[in-house]
Amino acid sequence: MFVAVIGSAHCSTRVAALAEKVGREIARHGAVLVCGGRGGVMEAACRGAKDEGGTTVGILPGTDRSEANPYIDVPIVTGLGEARNAVVVRSADTVIAISGGYGTLSEIGLARKMGRPVVGLETWELHQDGLPGTVVVHAGTPARAVEMALALAEERMA
Amino acid sequence: MFVAVIGSAHCSTRVAALAEKVGREIARHGAVLVCGGRGGVMEAACRGAKDEGGTTVGILPGTDRSEANPYIDVPIVTGLGEARNAVVVRSADTVIAISGGYGTLSEIGLARKMGRPVVGLETWELHQDGLPGTVVVHAGTPARAVEMALALAEERMA
Amino acid sequence: MFVAVIGSAHCSTRVAALAEKVGREIARHGAVLVCGGRGGVMEAACRGAKDEGGTTVGILPGTDRSEANPYIDVPIVTGLGEARNAVVVRSADTVIAISGGYGTLSEIGLARKMGRPVVGLETWELHQDGLPGTVVVHAGTPARAVEMALALAEERMA
Amino acid sequence: MFVAVIGSAHCSTRVAALAEKVGREIARHGAVLVCGGRGGVMEAACRGAKDEGGTTVGILPGTDRSEANPYIDVPIVTGLGEARNAVVVRSADTVIAISGGYGTLSEIGLARKMGRPVVGLETWELHQDGLPGTVVVHAGTPARAVEMALALAEERMA
Repeated sequence: MFVAVIGSAHCSTRVAALAEKVGREIARHGAVLVCGGRGGVMEAACRGAKDEGGTTVGILPGTDRSEANPYIDVPIVTGLGEARNAVVVRSADTVIAISGGYGTLSEIGLARKMGRPVVGLETWELHQDGLPGTVVVHAGTPARAVEMALALAEERMA
Repeated sequence: MFVAVIGSAHCSTRVAALAEKVGREIARHGAVLVCGGRGGVMEAACRGAKDEGGTTVGILPGTDRSEANPYIDVPIVTGLGEARNAVVVRSADTVIAISGGYGTLSEIGLARKMGRPVVGLETWELHQDGLPGTVVVHAGTPARAVEMALALAEERMA
Repeated sequence: MFVAVIGSAHCSTRVAALAEKVGREIARHGAVLVCGGRGGVMEAACRGAKDEGGTTVGILPGTDRSEANPYIDVPIVTGLGEARNAVVVRSADTVIAISGGYGTLSEIGLARKMGRPVVGLETWELHQDGLPGTVVVHAGTPARAVEMALALAEERMA
Repeated sequence: MFVAVIGSAHCSTRVAALAEKVGREIARHGAVLVCGGRGGVMEAACRGAKDEGGTTVGILPGTDRSEANPYIDVPIVTGLGEARNAVVVRSADTVIAISGGYGTLSEIGLARKMGRPVVGLETWELHQDGLPGTVVVHAGTPARAVEMALALAEERMA
């Protein structure tokens, strides 16, 4: 199972702590963590995953591998800029959004367009009158977010 | 000036009427209409632009030019799937979102990430506690949406 | 009909003269010229096309429209880096390679992979023992190159 | 060190045997094998790498992970079509081309454009009058190809 963690390259200590816990939980469940490979939420989640012996994949926007945070096992150097966001969510079975800005917003949209479930922690509230139904399933804790993300992916595959 | 119109490939008659008016106004202002090249909101906006003698560019997700709606002057065949959304907004100075689903949501995020203004007509309501400020500037009418989109782009370039 | 002209962003005066003639011929045949939008061969071809009242499309690698040469009518700003080469050839019915370096080589490969004919002027000589058949059809003059490129595209569509 | 192996998704038994040996040697040198993730040369190389306990990354063109060959450890699902070729070579420090068709040709061009060395086994012969110098360094055996590819990458980084 491949779980994408999406969020900003710069974040508060509190948000980083959430991301680190999410990373730990992903590794404990034996899933691979996929992300955009950079700092902030991505780095904190990768650090958590590596602390638990997990595997991390970073799909980078730029043209240089050195852009990857130090907890990335497999750096993919796309050179695609923001278009790499589509590759991050396409490569994952399920997505966890933690706080996040406009890049994260775009990944939520892409993930839902591609049929991936998105579980959120302190992230975007979204509503469009013409579209009934849930865009992001909000979770109360990191552990719960990972459980829900995995359960929704399993449900979808079944 | 290049104005992106984003919205779903399938839409109601009412939303199509809004899009057609937006396309007309873009052409009247002498701007080029950029879009994803397909049906629904994109087709209606292109039809409006062509009625007023405007120019339309369609940046297609698939591998075949025949995917373009009949009002596209310049079809770009990307073969990139959803990653083409980044090319649509990157190629525009300003963006108008009309209603729309998850693809539109991703384009709003990408546009804002790239610093493009987004004006909305009956589109997504978006909020994230950690991010103050306006994501989408909502407009009351198609004519007002185009005016605002152009004014915001000019302001940004100044 | 959309004709891609591929070649280097820097070229000799002699190669630029070939490219300009190719651009002129494309416009005379009423076809749209598609290219990577930058200098050298691309700029010379676009200048030729505009001299004859043709239309030019530039599919740029970077994130800024100002990268386009001054003869581009429709700039597409991809932000994809070298991956934009795939969009250039995918958007064309037929391809003319003029001299050129490694970027041009990649576009020849992509074009042939996508089934587009490639006509060459002073460009790459290519051979692979395991692959019989012609990779690039070499032409003696710019006028002949455009004729052949259009004829091969028509044959393929028929 | 990340080594890309490029070649066709369909190949002869003899070429597959070469690719398998290349994959073995990459793993013996402790390098990660990066490829397009599909059959033929890619699958044979990955099988060789896994036989020696190596790690394999597959950067897929389509939208479904099931497209990956069974020896891929880390599948990246790009949905980018042929544009994913740029991501394969961008993610590698050095490239080994084995036989191959038009896709391989495009990857040779992209790799050289990005400054990556390319070592070839029974692959394309390339020549352009305007460009002096070596495009592909041809090797006589799989073991020698891997040695040369690694040495050229080290030289470049130094």
